[in-house]
Amino acid sequence: MISPIIIGTMALDSIKTPFGEVNDALGGSATFSSIAASFFSKPGILSIVGKDFPKEHMDFLHSRNIDTTGVSTGDKTFRWKGFYEFDMNEAKTLNTELNVLADYKVEIPKTYEDAEYAFLGNIDPEQQIKVIDSLKKPKLIAMDTMNFWIDIKKDILLEAIKKSDILVINDGEARQLFETTNLVKAANKALKLVSKAVIIKKGEHGALLFTDSKHFNAPSYPLEDIKDPTGCGDCFGGGLIGYLAKTNNFDEANIRKAMIYGSTIASYNAEGFGTERLKEITLEDIEKRYKVFEDIREF
Amino acid sequence: MISPIIIGTMALDSIKTPFGEVNDALGGSATFSSIAASFFSKPGILSIVGKDFPKEHMDFLHSRNIDTTGVSTGDKTFRWKGFYEFDMNEAKTLNTELNVLADYKVEIPKTYEDAEYAFLGNIDPEQQIKVIDSLKKPKLIAMDTMNFWIDIKKDILLEAIKKSDILVINDGEARQLFETTNLVKAANKALKLVSKAVIIKKGEHGALLFTDSKHFNAPSYPLEDIKDPTGCGDCFGGGLIGYLAKTNNFDEANIRKAMIYGSTIASYNAEGFGTERLKEITLEDIEKRYKVFEDIREF
Repeated sequence: MISPIIIGTMALDSIKTPFGEVNDALGGSATFSSIAASFFSKPGILSIVGKDFPKEHMDFLHSRNIDTTGVSTGDKTFRWKGFYEFDMNEAKTLNTELNVLADYKVEIPKTYEDAEYAFLGNIDPEQQIKVIDSLKKPKLIAMDTMNFWIDIKKDILLEAIKKSDILVINDGEARQLFETTNLVKAANKALKLVSKAVIIKKGEHGALLFTDSKHFNAPSYPLEDIKDPTGCGDCFGGGLIGYLAKTNNFDEANIRKAMIYGSTIASYNAEGFGTERLKEITLEDIEKRYKVFEDIREF
Repeated sequence: MISPIIIGTMALDSIKTPFGEVNDALGGSATFSSIAASFFSKPGILSIVGKDFPKEHMDFLHSRNIDTTGVSTGDKTFRWKGFYEFDMNEAKTLNTELNVLADYKVEIPKTYEDAEYAFLGNIDPEQQIKVIDSLKKPKLIAMDTMNFWIDIKKDILLEAIKKSDILVINDGEARQLFETTNLVKAANKALKLVSKAVIIKKGEHGALLFTDSKHFNAPSYPLEDIKDPTGCGDCFGGGLIGYLAKTNNFDEANIRKAMIYGSTIASYNAEGFGTERLKEITLEDIEKRYKVFEDIREF
């Protein structure tokens, strides 16, 4: 069965960091998330590309058992150009060409409607809501977003969050959306909207899980050489939902494990440009680093 | 036996945060560290105060079984005046009156020389070195510092670090001292100087332990109401050394536990102004929160 369903962007990224650069590399939130999820399950993507989207990228996704029936085709692929300075914490955008994304309306294949798990990656919240409404028997819906949608579509975004079970959001966006610098306060506000949990991603500082009664602090992996952090947040979300879908268990203890799997894949992703490290690693590598995560939090 | 020996400042702090203010409250690195250490052992302070230092503060320290034989007396106590804005991460200094600290030369009582554990809190690295050299049979020396000493006495500071076993330093200062934004790189450079371990304090993001072969990521406690973070880093260091001295064990696994005890006391400290929360809590409270720390990192 195709599950989880993952909506998000598919992009050609041109990225420069102090450690190198790539041009028109495979990128986008749906891309990173679905590759991460594919280590555990068979994701189906909802997105759009242009006629110029290289066939090799699509072939690669298929080779990973990712269903792309839900990928529409328009004229020209979404492109993002950006760079990172030495601190690597913040992407600076040089240029964004929305192209096919500008008027994207999601079209959901019949074969996706029975999926029980979904990850709504960063994209227009109106499209995220359409995905939620199309699922016939959803068990768990997790969603991500970004500051752009908080700025221009906050009401619709809040509606999408209310229809979700887990909000996955980065720390800066949590502070912005819930208008407080304190992440515990932000999480408590978010918990009033979602049915199950709030996960706050903190980049190099790990991630936090809040439910009504429990709290989990996921450690970060100590990376000495970060080449390109693009897509790490998407890998985290994709790994999370992929593991939850595979185990078909979303109690709090299993969400903790899923966060570590997400963190593991994200940490590998930062070691290379674009998706290059994701193409190299295996489930064995992931399990190996998962064990390192166990050791670095033990006391 | 008096141990650990703790050198640092004793101050009268005037602090304003969005949640209140205090004037001439008991403060200083040696004060916070020694109170934290006193939950586990019998610390001896090396510091200096003025004739204006309120007797009640000294009485309080004695009531906690803290030895103050090593506290010299000069004319006027060191004073710090500062404030925090809503994000609470950075203290903004309004005024510093060094007073007795300006020409402080540490005088080490005979009764301190047999101590096996020492914490060199933030103070002039020349005085830190004198303390190291005065100890007859030191087992473990941990030291802290701050950007001020990196700016004006970097060479002497590096000398002090080389004579220490554990460097305890905050993330910004680690980046500054070792000239890299990457904390793993900074830690690896620091490990070439110290004999045993490097601990990087990250405030609301917890703390990291690096030794030659292992890494530990200490979670942070999810505080919803932070009243005043002044002294939290000092509490962390004091709790750490106090626990190590009590257990007389500094293998890597025990340093991890000591970091959690330090984090526990620091988290309580942030809940009140100055030392007010430290005056209220008991070892029972600390053990209770230690268990919460165990739960928030379990997966």
